[in-house]
Amino acid sequence: MTRLLYALAGTDKTRQFSPHVWKTVMSLAHKGLDYRTVPVGFTEIPAIEDGATATVPLLRDGDRLVCDSFDIALYLDEAYPDRPTLFGGEGGKAMARFIEAWSQSTLHMAVTRIAILDIHDLLGPVDRDYFRRSREGRLGASLEDIAAAGKQEIEGFAKKLQPLRNMLNVQLFIGGDGPLFADYIVFGALQWLRTTAGTKVLEVDDPVALWFERCLDLHGGAGRRVTAA
Amino acid sequence: MTRLLYALAGTDKTRQFSPHVWKTVMSLAHKGLDYRTVPVGFTEIPAIEDGATATVPLLRDGDRLVCDSFDIALYLDEAYPDRPTLFGGEGGKAMARFIEAWSQSTLHMAVTRIAILDIHDLLGPVDRDYFRRSREGRLGASLEDIAAAGKQEIEGFAKKLQPLRNMLNVQLFIGGDGPLFADYIVFGALQWLRTTAGTKVLEVDDPVALWFERCLDLHGGAGRRVTAA
Repeated sequence: MTRLLYALAGTDKTRQFSPHVWKTVMSLAHKGLDYRTVPVGFTEIPAIEDGATATVPLLRDGDRLVCDSFDIALYLDEAYPDRPTLFGGEGGKAMARFIEAWSQSTLHMAVTRIAILDIHDLLGPVDRDYFRRSREGRLGASLEDIAAAGKQEIEGFAKKLQPLRNMLNVQLFIGGDGPLFADYIVFGALQWLRTTAGTKVLEVDDPVALWFERCLDLHGGAGRRVTAA
Repeated sequence: MTRLLYALAGTDKTRQFSPHVWKTVMSLAHKGLDYRTVPVGFTEIPAIEDGATATVPLLRDGDRLVCDSFDIALYLDEAYPDRPTLFGGEGGKAMARFIEAWSQSTLHMAVTRIAILDIHDLLGPVDRDYFRRSREGRLGASLEDIAAAGKQEIEGFAKKLQPLRNMLNVQLFIGGDGPLFADYIVFGALQWLRTTAGTKVLEVDDPVALWFERCLDLHGGAGRRVTAA
């Protein structure tokens, strides 16, 4: 098989946790495309495919190399137009950009704060050093102080998802009756939390929790292949 | 002409201010469809078209009556498929529901709090009584107390728009290169603020302010036909 997905890994190579990689795992499953996962640590990324990327996911599909989960989804829809669409047209491509911006600006920093020590502990020694140095530099505090502040994020997390909760009054998925890449964007953020800290942030009967369970059930339960932390 | 748009009005019938009506004004302009505006006060709504609706906008298009700005946009795309699309496909229809939920849950309460006395003052005596009674009942405080609390909303307003601001790094409109109904959803909320309180909540060089100006310029400057308060 010539299709390879370079995916972030800690010491347990089977525990996928990167939100961006999860978006691509779900995209590939949505399109019904086979691939082999190549697990890489944070500090190994610059060396893969002759320095093709600074971040994962990176997809090799035959001769093509595509990085960035959004660009990979666009590529997959263009390269495999006969398979289920990830965007549902040009409007969907454009609006998924808004949903990506919402997810990143609203959810990602909260998950980072809640799960930062758990993520650290998933990594091998070399990656732990890199992770601590880069995150402490970027966030201007020690991992331990960030995690302590993260406790406050837990209580407010469910409220951040109010737009999704309200939308779920009218349809089952962000994509409508079925999922599209926009669902995988938000799924990626919550799956990141589920597979690292495993913190309970939603009541079990919260419409968002029920949507997340529906996402975990998709594509033969692809999202359940990694258990909750 | 058999196309009528029933639209909320205060004492000055030419000052459109309802966010939902603005979404439909922009939708009709986007489709290039002529219509006549029928201004109605809050307390006149139950009597229009034999009690067809509890809210405006209400569109009469020949024999058809359609209420709710989202349903009107869906109707217009279905009835006039040869004119510019408001959604850009099925994915766009679904994702616009998320953007509607985001706009309503994030922006509308803030605008209500900032502009509530200004909205009150735009109305005639009978509608003022109705507005005060219904809003004070719904929000559990006097209009004056809501407005006092609204002062705090002004400072935090720009931050609520961060998802849109980040998205504008990659494209000019929520619809991509050009506007779609999703743009008019968010435009409606900001135009509501502009035409009632006129409060400055964005720096002039904020990417969101620049996007809003682009929206005001659309369709021959349809949004500028009402000046800022």
